[in-house]
Amino acid sequence: MTKTRTIHAADLEDIATGGAILGTGGGGDPYIGKLMAQEAIRKHGPVTLVDVDTLADDALVVPVCMMGAPTVMAEKLPQGDELMNAFSALQKLLGRKIDAIHCCEAGGINSTTPFIVAAASGLPLVDGDGMGRAYPELQMVTFTMHGISATPMVLCDDKGNSIVLETVSNKWTEKLARAATVEMGGAALLAFYPMTGAQAKKATVRGTLSLCEKLGQTLRQAHADHVEPVGRVAEVLRADTIFSGRVTDIERRTVGGFARGTARLEGLDEFRGQTFRLDFQNEFLMAERDGEIVATTPDLLTVLDSETGNPVTADALRYGLRLKALVFPCDPQWLSPQGIDLVGPRYFGYDIDYRPYQFRATPA
Amino acid sequence: MTKTRTIHAADLEDIATGGAILGTGGGGDPYIGKLMAQEAIRKHGPVTLVDVDTLADDALVVPVCMMGAPTVMAEKLPQGDELMNAFSALQKLLGRKIDAIHCCEAGGINSTTPFIVAAASGLPLVDGDGMGRAYPELQMVTFTMHGISATPMVLCDDKGNSIVLETVSNKWTEKLARAATVEMGGAALLAFYPMTGAQAKKATVRGTLSLCEKLGQTLRQAHADHVEPVGRVAEVLRADTIFSGRVTDIERRTVGGFARGTARLEGLDEFRGQTFRLDFQNEFLMAERDGEIVATTPDLLTVLDSETGNPVTADALRYGLRLKALVFPCDPQWLSPQGIDLVGPRYFGYDIDYRPYQFRATPA
Repeated sequence: MTKTRTIHAADLEDIATGGAILGTGGGGDPYIGKLMAQEAIRKHGPVTLVDVDTLADDALVVPVCMMGAPTVMAEKLPQGDELMNAFSALQKLLGRKIDAIHCCEAGGINSTTPFIVAAASGLPLVDGDGMGRAYPELQMVTFTMHGISATPMVLCDDKGNSIVLETVSNKWTEKLARAATVEMGGAALLAFYPMTGAQAKKATVRGTLSLCEKLGQTLRQAHADHVEPVGRVAEVLRADTIFSGRVTDIERRTVGGFARGTARLEGLDEFRGQTFRLDFQNEFLMAERDGEIVATTPDLLTVLDSETGNPVTADALRYGLRLKALVFPCDPQWLSPQGIDLVGPRYFGYDIDYRPYQFRATPA
Repeated sequence: MTKTRTIHAADLEDIATGGAILGTGGGGDPYIGKLMAQEAIRKHGPVTLVDVDTLADDALVVPVCMMGAPTVMAEKLPQGDELMNAFSALQKLLGRKIDAIHCCEAGGINSTTPFIVAAASGLPLVDGDGMGRAYPELQMVTFTMHGISATPMVLCDDKGNSIVLETVSNKWTEKLARAATVEMGGAALLAFYPMTGAQAKKATVRGTLSLCEKLGQTLRQAHADHVEPVGRVAEVLRADTIFSGRVTDIERRTVGGFARGTARLEGLDEFRGQTFRLDFQNEFLMAERDGEIVATTPDLLTVLDSETGNPVTADALRYGLRLKALVFPCDPQWLSPQGIDLVGPRYFGYDIDYRPYQFRATPA
């Protein structure tokens, strides 16, 4: 990886595709974020993507993102301006020029939203994020594990309302920001987790925006070459294929701003005769094959269309779709006791310990 | 009324009693606010209560209050410190020294909470408020009718969390602050509606803290003199007694942070054989006698114990209590079309126009 590269509007196509794969079923539709980021780059010029090591230790680095339920975001297209409003308000509050933009969540819509602010502000964007994937709650970032406060945080909506939070914990930030987001109609724009360059170097999951781009390129190339795409993507991710099958049942409900539910599949190909269950709370969190757990958060579960290899979000799951389910390892930071407390299966209500998927079931 | 008086800890007794009467059944228990204000006065010295006309036109005046459901407040005794935190944070945000404290709601707990900040800051407190009573939502103040924005507003909780709101309307402030208050456990401390002295002179419902004190004194004197107390209070308020009876039924529910419900009474004395219904959403909003509406918001409905004359909140209504219901006219500002839009019966879901109670039914 080069230390500094330039990202043009066209490059966002691959990044958004890869963002949907790292979105592990959630994180919001990167398509919307892509359009907004492309518009911002056309208007303001390309974005400089930088390795986190290029930052000065005393640099001021600020992640920006969109918060809300993916189902709402798709119906309520946000403007790029509100994200700049949140960024500018936080800069004013901090009383100091921000030096670089960061990404909190390389999966889903927030793989592309930071490009909007990077383009509009002319500031470099760190190649990396705070998850290496998507997660549903804002304290679920490596930044939290490194003692970085989510606040002061600015939250803006599309109507012109803004909120500044100062909280006693990142979990409290989540609670209060979530309530505000629901009240604002289900989606809000955030600038938060102000950190130093030195903190960013320790906490960042590195190179994840480049990984998104590589995943998108791989899929695009497979389409151009008319070769089987899922295997190519799995190779880049070093992922195992844990199921191939057809969707037979979907249950969904929206609870407290989250899209929760379960999908059930019947096996095809080498999985014929087997069943598969996939649970999501925005993201895919747990997979069961023939009643046996095969993978859980924080390992990454992603689902691709069996034919096209295109990522399928939890939101887009439909009866009859033919899918392949992949699992691949999370960033090692998540395997610490603190990491498992933040995003392990028990946090999401499963009465099981986390075990790395490699030690659960061998691929059929 | 003198232009400037000194309020000592002992004076809070009468003010709190009167605050419960103007609380019209809601506004939270003034007892808690009284204890906090007395403690603050003992610690920091007495409070100077001033007529709003003593303020310079360019003075910076800030109301402070507590927000939440009365039922929660009674179980979750707040500390005075959080109110000072909200006040200090707003002063810092405004970048200018605040010159005087204001009261937004002379009914219920918020008749006494401003004394906490006035004592601790050493600033004068305006003798008046933004309602002349209690109301359940924060945009329901005369300040709103005079175009004064509720924001910037600071909201603090007992855990150390704080929120700054900047909204596009006072109704939006209510929505977002209410959601935050619910999330914070049901009660929060606010500094908001920063206004100039000139604005305060136009918008304030005048003399209401002195009125609270007079009501408390009247009741105390009636007890000392062993005379019938309800009539004395009614005389001070120029109130009509619209019912006397015994509680036969109470329905309650907590909805979105509000204590809602209905009480039913059977008549005694000159109302024997008649029935009475009293609806509340924190405050008493509508009274029906024998199925006919006799009074609605914004006119003030208050309920006193038939024997002691002590005010009874909606929260304290119990089967078998013997009560007298009084009605008295609201501040004329509420009778404007804007005022009726903000707090008239239709806002609270009643499909009826407001009519002054004097034109509805003659007292039996």
